Amino acid sequence: MKYISLMGATGSIGTQTLDIIREHPGEFRLIALSVGRNIDLTRKIIKEFNPDLVSTSERSAAKALEAEFPDITFTYGQEGLIEVAVYHKAQILVNAVSGSVGLTPTLQAIKERKTIAIANKETLVTAGHLVMEEAKRNEVSLLPVDSEHSAIFQALQGEQHKNIEKLILTASGGSFRDRTRQELENVTVKEALNHPNWSMGAKITIDSATMMNKGLEVIEAHWLFSMDYDKIDVLLHKESIIHSMIEFHDSSIIAQLGTPDMRVPIQYALTYPDRLPLPTANRLSLSEIGNLHFQKMDMNRFRCLRFAYEAGKEGGTMPTVLNAANEAAVAAFLEGKATFLQIEDLIERALSIHKNIKNPGFTEIQEVDKETRKYINSLL
Amino acid sequence: MKYISLMGATGSIGTQTLDIIREHPGEFRLIALSVGRNIDLTRKIIKEFNPDLVSTSERSAAKALEAEFPDITFTYGQEGLIEVAVYHKAQILVNAVSGSVGLTPTLQAIKERKTIAIANKETLVTAGHLVMEEAKRNEVSLLPVDSEHSAIFQALQGEQHKNIEKLILTASGGSFRDRTRQELENVTVKEALNHPNWSMGAKITIDSATMMNKGLEVIEAHWLFSMDYDKIDVLLHKESIIHSMIEFHDSSIIAQLGTPDMRVPIQYALTYPDRLPLPTANRLSLSEIGNLHFQKMDMNRFRCLRFAYEAGKEGGTMPTVLNAANEAAVAAFLEGKATFLQIEDLIERALSIHKNIKNPGFTEIQEVDKETRKYINSLL
Repeated sequence: MKYISLMGATGSIGTQTLDIIREHPGEFRLIALSVGRNIDLTRKIIKEFNPDLVSTSERSAAKALEAEFPDITFTYGQEGLIEVAVYHKAQILVNAVSGSVGLTPTLQAIKERKTIAIANKETLVTAGHLVMEEAKRNEVSLLPVDSEHSAIFQALQGEQHKNIEKLILTASGGSFRDRTRQELENVTVKEALNHPNWSMGAKITIDSATMMNKGLEVIEAHWLFSMDYDKIDVLLHKESIIHSMIEFHDSSIIAQLGTPDMRVPIQYALTYPDRLPLPTANRLSLSEIGNLHFQKMDMNRFRCLRFAYEAGKEGGTMPTVLNAANEAAVAAFLEGKATFLQIEDLIERALSIHKNIKNPGFTEIQEVDKETRKYINSLL
Repeated sequence: MKYISLMGATGSIGTQTLDIIREHPGEFRLIALSVGRNIDLTRKIIKEFNPDLVSTSERSAAKALEAEFPDITFTYGQEGLIEVAVYHKAQILVNAVSGSVGLTPTLQAIKERKTIAIANKETLVTAGHLVMEEAKRNEVSLLPVDSEHSAIFQALQGEQHKNIEKLILTASGGSFRDRTRQELENVTVKEALNHPNWSMGAKITIDSATMMNKGLEVIEAHWLFSMDYDKIDVLLHKESIIHSMIEFHDSSIIAQLGTPDMRVPIQYALTYPDRLPLPTANRLSLSEIGNLHFQKMDMNRFRCLRFAYEAGKEGGTMPTVLNAANEAAVAAFLEGKATFLQIEDLIERALSIHKNIKNPGFTEIQEVDKETRKYINSLL
């Protein structure tokens, strides 16, 4: 029986993680979780899974739930998140929060030698070198939950790193794949939130539309698989059936395929190195789909992807700026304070004014993150 | 340094195996080989690779070459094939002959504990249970060289057999994929030998056009991967880019992709479990190809595939009959003694009159093979 802590239980990845735990009651037990603002859902989760520890966003929610569930320990806020991450009974931490808020709890959990199932790419983007260093020092495995990184991780099983020629991340193209830049000028939040293949949270759906999501994934892949940026390619593949690939130096390519169902990579991270059945998953039928399409990625059409490659290659605090500026700009777009195309412009400005700090420590990263958000908000 | 015996050195797989040995002079040494009737090519191969032992088809060829190369041992015929297969200095036998003639040498080589790189699918089709039994008893690895089986073998690395839901073999459809059965009535040998994707020997190219090649591969996969027939699917995929796939019970699919280049699976078998660079291979560019197509396999359009499933499921000597009838019928077609569609009819008749022998021994298989060929020839 594997005991699981789950950060972000009420989000999209969080609820799908609960699905997987529910499918295999003999294998997994949810022991600690953090939740967002959906208290009704939180109540249901507590009743169903009966965890030891729950952390809410706000103190008031923790207090209210405490009265209802006297046998369960409640906590809240950033401190609560850390308590969930390091909860002593858990072997695995599923980090399914959105944004760089996941960094500190993840670092703490690594120090406590938890296995990390990581869906929260911002953690690796903003401070990949610190996270990987800490994971190495503590001999902790970082298991990817993103469909693309899980695909690469699965394709890598039984293979040797030295034989990799390149990683090929596939990109659906997001909500606006077939629109020109001109057609993007007046798009609404509602249009941007309508992803063709995947049903996901708001932040990642907007990131898919700007292609920043793929940019963050490139940086994440760089860290997870210690791969140079010029050995990471992105390929447009609108059906999201081939989730990603590895090309080896003998020209052979190993790919992972499936219907777009995040529960598959989530379950793989939880069962790794084994697999368990997932009878409720939709099986892929290539003959029914009939056709898979592939197209070269256009770095001018999708400027955010170019920014990500550039920030990643420069290293230091540039990826921190990239990520913080993106988080702030996407929040502004969702709140109606910026247009869709302004997201790119805001990020570009933040990157251009930043004086890079090489090999930054944790405090420097936190400061740069905060300053960047302040800078973006000052431009709105 | 791996010492290699190569059966069928002047054939299509044989010459491509020589390419791989040539590419990696520090890794591989060709120590023994058997050749067909192309003596000029044999002479060139001897001069370049300077082997210890060479077996020709005919005695006269062996005698003639002996005079030219006094330091090399020459032998010939079926006995010669066995001498090459068991040559004491070789660690690996590459079985690249065509037809069930490969069976006895392979069994002998397994008894001598050679690793077997097997391109000769007829050996496994005609006597899979004997070959696998012997391989198990002698703890010998059978490494597939067929692109489809190599794909499955590569996809299987790091995975567990118990987690496999099914194998999915892809099929290009061969020279006549887009023709109706009616349009097949008067096709010529020349048309049949014109495969859209792969440049291969005559027998296998005709087998691709009748879809018997895929049928033989289904039976081969059954033995190589100890997989029930109802867990082996065939999918039409005209580009031959996805070479085959494994679907696991969690719905995840691992596939191996590449340009159609037989040197890749050949090299993989020789370097397994490692990989070596193959800089002369054409790299796959999915964005250049743009589109991959998939289609359900039609067992009525391709009757030979249905025969193969049926013979495989029945077991015993039925696959031996399937294979021998097919070899004889294809030879008849190539010699102008049968039409293309008669290949199917001849095989069907041989299967329908055969009284199946369960769990046949080596001698019974040899007899059934001989009788079947005689029967087919009696019908011509």
